[in-house]
Amino acid sequence: MADTIRRIGVLTGGGDCPGLNAVIRAAVKTAINEYDWEVLGIEDGFEGLIQPGKVRPLTAADVRGILPRGGTILGTTNRANPFHYEVETDAGVAVFDVSDDVVRHAQVLGIDALIVIGGDGSLRIAHELMQKGLKVVGVPKTIDNDLQGTVVTFGFDTAVNTAMEALDKLHTTAESHHRVIILELMGRDAGWIALKAGIAGGADVILIPEIPYDIEVVADKINTRNRRGAKFSIVVVAEGAKPVGGEAVYQAERQVGGERRLGGIGETLAVQLKGHCEAEVRVTVLGHLQRGGSPSAFDRLLATRFGAVAVHLVAQGKLGHMVALQDERIISVSIADAVAAQKFVPLDSDILLTAFGLDICLGNSRQVIEEMQAGG
Amino acid sequence: MADTIRRIGVLTGGGDCPGLNAVIRAAVKTAINEYDWEVLGIEDGFEGLIQPGKVRPLTAADVRGILPRGGTILGTTNRANPFHYEVETDAGVAVFDVSDDVVRHAQVLGIDALIVIGGDGSLRIAHELMQKGLKVVGVPKTIDNDLQGTVVTFGFDTAVNTAMEALDKLHTTAESHHRVIILELMGRDAGWIALKAGIAGGADVILIPEIPYDIEVVADKINTRNRRGAKFSIVVVAEGAKPVGGEAVYQAERQVGGERRLGGIGETLAVQLKGHCEAEVRVTVLGHLQRGGSPSAFDRLLATRFGAVAVHLVAQGKLGHMVALQDERIISVSIADAVAAQKFVPLDSDILLTAFGLDICLGNSRQVIEEMQAGG
Amino acid sequence: MADTIRRIGVLTGGGDCPGLNAVIRAAVKTAINEYDWEVLGIEDGFEGLIQPGKVRPLTAADVRGILPRGGTILGTTNRANPFHYEVETDAGVAVFDVSDDVVRHAQVLGIDALIVIGGDGSLRIAHELMQKGLKVVGVPKTIDNDLQGTVVTFGFDTAVNTAMEALDKLHTTAESHHRVIILELMGRDAGWIALKAGIAGGADVILIPEIPYDIEVVADKINTRNRRGAKFSIVVVAEGAKPVGGEAVYQAERQVGGERRLGGIGETLAVQLKGHCEAEVRVTVLGHLQRGGSPSAFDRLLATRFGAVAVHLVAQGKLGHMVALQDERIISVSIADAVAAQKFVPLDSDILLTAFGLDICLGNSRQVIEEMQAGG
Amino acid sequence: MADTIRRIGVLTGGGDCPGLNAVIRAAVKTAINEYDWEVLGIEDGFEGLIQPGKVRPLTAADVRGILPRGGTILGTTNRANPFHYEVETDAGVAVFDVSDDVVRHAQVLGIDALIVIGGDGSLRIAHELMQKGLKVVGVPKTIDNDLQGTVVTFGFDTAVNTAMEALDKLHTTAESHHRVIILELMGRDAGWIALKAGIAGGADVILIPEIPYDIEVVADKINTRNRRGAKFSIVVVAEGAKPVGGEAVYQAERQVGGERRLGGIGETLAVQLKGHCEAEVRVTVLGHLQRGGSPSAFDRLLATRFGAVAVHLVAQGKLGHMVALQDERIISVSIADAVAAQKFVPLDSDILLTAFGLDICLGNSRQVIEEMQAGG
Repeated sequence: MADTIRRIGVLTGGGDCPGLNAVIRAAVKTAINEYDWEVLGIEDGFEGLIQPGKVRPLTAADVRGILPRGGTILGTTNRANPFHYEVETDAGVAVFDVSDDVVRHAQVLGIDALIVIGGDGSLRIAHELMQKGLKVVGVPKTIDNDLQGTVVTFGFDTAVNTAMEALDKLHTTAESHHRVIILELMGRDAGWIALKAGIAGGADVILIPEIPYDIEVVADKINTRNRRGAKFSIVVVAEGAKPVGGEAVYQAERQVGGERRLGGIGETLAVQLKGHCEAEVRVTVLGHLQRGGSPSAFDRLLATRFGAVAVHLVAQGKLGHMVALQDERIISVSIADAVAAQKFVPLDSDILLTAFGLDICLGNSRQVIEEMQAGG
Repeated sequence: MADTIRRIGVLTGGGDCPGLNAVIRAAVKTAINEYDWEVLGIEDGFEGLIQPGKVRPLTAADVRGILPRGGTILGTTNRANPFHYEVETDAGVAVFDVSDDVVRHAQVLGIDALIVIGGDGSLRIAHELMQKGLKVVGVPKTIDNDLQGTVVTFGFDTAVNTAMEALDKLHTTAESHHRVIILELMGRDAGWIALKAGIAGGADVILIPEIPYDIEVVADKINTRNRRGAKFSIVVVAEGAKPVGGEAVYQAERQVGGERRLGGIGETLAVQLKGHCEAEVRVTVLGHLQRGGSPSAFDRLLATRFGAVAVHLVAQGKLGHMVALQDERIISVSIADAVAAQKFVPLDSDILLTAFGLDICLGNSRQVIEEMQAGG
Repeated sequence: MADTIRRIGVLTGGGDCPGLNAVIRAAVKTAINEYDWEVLGIEDGFEGLIQPGKVRPLTAADVRGILPRGGTILGTTNRANPFHYEVETDAGVAVFDVSDDVVRHAQVLGIDALIVIGGDGSLRIAHELMQKGLKVVGVPKTIDNDLQGTVVTFGFDTAVNTAMEALDKLHTTAESHHRVIILELMGRDAGWIALKAGIAGGADVILIPEIPYDIEVVADKINTRNRRGAKFSIVVVAEGAKPVGGEAVYQAERQVGGERRLGGIGETLAVQLKGHCEAEVRVTVLGHLQRGGSPSAFDRLLATRFGAVAVHLVAQGKLGHMVALQDERIISVSIADAVAAQKFVPLDSDILLTAFGLDICLGNSRQVIEEMQAGG
Repeated sequence: MADTIRRIGVLTGGGDCPGLNAVIRAAVKTAINEYDWEVLGIEDGFEGLIQPGKVRPLTAADVRGILPRGGTILGTTNRANPFHYEVETDAGVAVFDVSDDVVRHAQVLGIDALIVIGGDGSLRIAHELMQKGLKVVGVPKTIDNDLQGTVVTFGFDTAVNTAMEALDKLHTTAESHHRVIILELMGRDAGWIALKAGIAGGADVILIPEIPYDIEVVADKINTRNRRGAKFSIVVVAEGAKPVGGEAVYQAERQVGGERRLGGIGETLAVQLKGHCEAEVRVTVLGHLQRGGSPSAFDRLLATRFGAVAVHLVAQGKLGHMVALQDERIISVSIADAVAAQKFVPLDSDILLTAFGLDICLGNSRQVIEEMQAGG
């Protein structure tokens, strides 16, 4: 099939993360060096195929020096869904299906195949556009590491290192002031960042969405540490962690005295803990810092391999597939399969077993967690 | 006088900051190597001279390996003021003056002189205790850099580097998503961290307490950038920055719709900007991360020099003095003078002139700032 | 079996690497928390079971705060082989087999099982001691990543990041001065560090032991870059890389004019290149810096899991086994199998394919490498 | 004078160092924003005014994003001296004085003033070109910090931090293996980097060019540490350090057994120490790594201030002057004065006093050093 291809497009969609530029660079270089194809860069995700003037050629010179840089030179957005495109009008927001226009736009641009670098949202769109005739290959991107089909994607390792370095910094303050310090990390549905960074950063408590936390168990852990002389505690909490009882209980606890709605789980937990512990509590929300920075070696290499192999997949005609890491090798899996389900922290992971051995509190008693696992 | 000294005490007071351990290490080593004195470590600031069981000998072995570590091995607190010591009783908080007990406690421990490493609060207490007979030498500590008498103190350089690295990380996200990103930094009264980190981190807008900001001027800067194609902006704001009109206007703006009181200046500014700009706005509050981490080379060296010279000041009988940096040399200045006034960013600094040349918005028009400066 | 165990020993052998302390910490905590065992720390590898006075109890307090620290609190050595123990005497070096004494010493100390953290040398010794009755569980350590049986070990990721950061730094100098900069990295037999760091750091040439290099091919790559306007090149070379012709040719080239024997492959390559390129050439040997530093998040987590699971292996009676990483899980493999062969970079790896796509020179023409692979 | 200026040139000369791009960026932005001048970038130092085709306009867009990047976008060289310009001919190297051509070339390009960013070599050339009519303003650059007239220049702080981080890494290996580790740092004539990084990195021995070292004193320090149980030592040596007896003795010691000339002072010292100590000795030469990397906050800010103020100096007609840092302010000093003498580590510095207090060996006995100071 490679000989029918003369020009490919590349776009990045969804939240930015370290390694996007490394994928772009490898794809451009490989397309030129190995196949002599032209590459068009599409700006701001699918927006670049909806609005005019957002496409530019990418040459080897354009991708020089971008390997160590975070973000994406193409721009990205979480919002431009061609099947559900929102336009502000005088009468409010109107929604259009512009997917046919996108496919036509790609044809007019002479794009023989499109490499979509994005999360489950962007990949799902890519998959649907393929039903309409657009030839697509995917590169998975999820800083939360919650995508099926690939062991891990680029950006995650950098985010875990950033979070761990924050924990290293907070440790000294916690210890010097005998405080409880809560660090809120990313992870809306899956607790990978919190779990891995928490263990790597020496946290005493780690709360993840997969295990609803019992505030009494958490407070007990902190109080026990205080009694034994370790008069500080480090609590890591994923943004999507919830107390036993779930969303409803969480929202109730977030509403303090009817007066002020707290920012997120970190602040809410702080208020809860103040009722159960003697210690001073402080909260830090790491937020967008986890998405920034120069990618780690692991992420630069993985992103580079993904970019290069994605181009080979196009040449092999593996449309509708995305690159993935399995057993230390880059393979291809069907996009449809990959976006079918999320990947959560399994409760029988040896990482949880390790956490128990280190006496890290995971939000509930070991017995309850083992029952969840048996039940789950 | 040195021969009348046989034992000195060391304590750290106020908020922790990178370099405290380097001061302790240098003081202990110098006292032992040069004068053959004993050193007692006092735990948790002045609390260690109020409560029993908080004093321990410090030998060379005790300070081995602590040079690169943030925080303080002695612990610290912002709260134990011997002249105003708060005790929780059944009837509420009672306040006592225990300063005489502190002086007596030090005598009983055989402390011939006390090295107090602390901010203006701790140094003021030290100075008052000297009136009661305690022999004191100070080592200034203020991460905000707002202390008179010394060009700079340790911890500040590390904090500025931490803030700058955060800006480097936020840049890629801002650029990739075409966003306005606000970074709230420390600096309640003086804007040193925000100004220096802001310029070093390539910020487009820098708001400091010394210059009340006009939201229209700030929004205009951002809108101009968007029009010219730089569709993102980085705004750095010191926690103590205020709009024109001051505290009252700030509190009014912080109260949004009567419903929810915003967290701080970063969040408040975001809400204000949303009314004046098209762009998406995001806020990151760096918080305690600025106090953590391994000290920079500058801070390790300065802290080490401070610790060593403080011991020599004790030997020379320079009581009531603190070490200070001036013209690249460590000198001694009177504690009383140093705590008499705060050090603000002068409006005629060449740093501000530099910011104008780079077209950085400082929260108000250049003309207004120059009039403020002329008005003094 | 766990109930027959009351006391275990832990030792670290071979070259130091980031993560050793994390293993020790996890093993000590898990042994105490999960099994209530005592732990003895053996100092300086097997030397600690040969010489007296080198054993100390390890409690939870002893391992507090060591997670982020490089090196090993137990000390290590590459030299104390109990089967071949060298002693300096007046008559020169005498060699003894003290393996029986080591086994007896462990019995006298009440060590029911020994956790050996070490490379293939230490693990081989451990395996042989097991034949003599010592109960052993292994934790693999090799910064070069050349051990069979485990996908990777701790320390490697940190070393690759350190090397990549060095490449980032050297890039700016190379570019500013239009120079060829050679970076010599670890890797005596296997080129994993050079290959991974080289790609992650944007190297133009990567030379590994698995592919003998042809100096003409390397020089041609550099000269082509110069002609095309990229007037600098970054060359990464593993310490064990050799020219076509192997060791004999290398030693001949290392001897320049009979006068001075060059330091290593980096310097030798520089001299070779000067004969074939116009450009100025500079060499940096990263050396021990690759073994130092705080471990990366990946290494801290992997080392922690290894330490915890090793203790569980002891409890399960899996003697003669070592922990290993496979498919993202910690499993156990036979030490005998693991040390039977080294793990080299396979010539059909998608990483090499990626390098070709990026037009990275791997020391020889693609055709020659593909023939080696087909032949190999 | 500003109104007679319409176009300025900028060039970087000498070895690269972190912060050059920050100077260029600030100069370009300030020239455009404040004075509406055009800026021409001259490539590869004075070479760009000798050879054709090495001049390009610099706009605000050209300097976007370069603040955090090491090196210089203009290129640099240590070799193009217009008064002594070397050209390779068939008959060998011929030397020409092309200084008149350089002045004429600048006129033809319409350069009304030239900002020269460089070390003492480049500044001396700039000063001489001014005698011939070229209008020049200087920005001092010396990573070694050995230039009179300014307290410090950009690049030095980054280099000291890089060296300190290397020491942090080497510490763990030295400690784990009970070794002596020697780190060779930059500093041909002045020992600033070695002294400051050595203290900040916790070195046990620091050897600088200003104090000839006595190998017996150094070995004695190491042996004393070993006897007392600290069985490792970290030795920092500036590349220009010499033994007592100076260059002649050094060259004799460098020639080992007539067979192999050692690389530099680090290797030479290692051989010397092996004769005097029991310990294993290892050497690391940091080399070009000290010139690389993203500049520290201090260097980015200082470089930015230098670049901005240099433009103001041009506007004020302060030709023949360079920017300098004194008392925390940017001032201007005569280039002629600045290059007249080098700035060495003064033997009465409180930094040396601090080193004594920490029991750091400075290469000779305290008594000898104090006599040198009294005599010096």
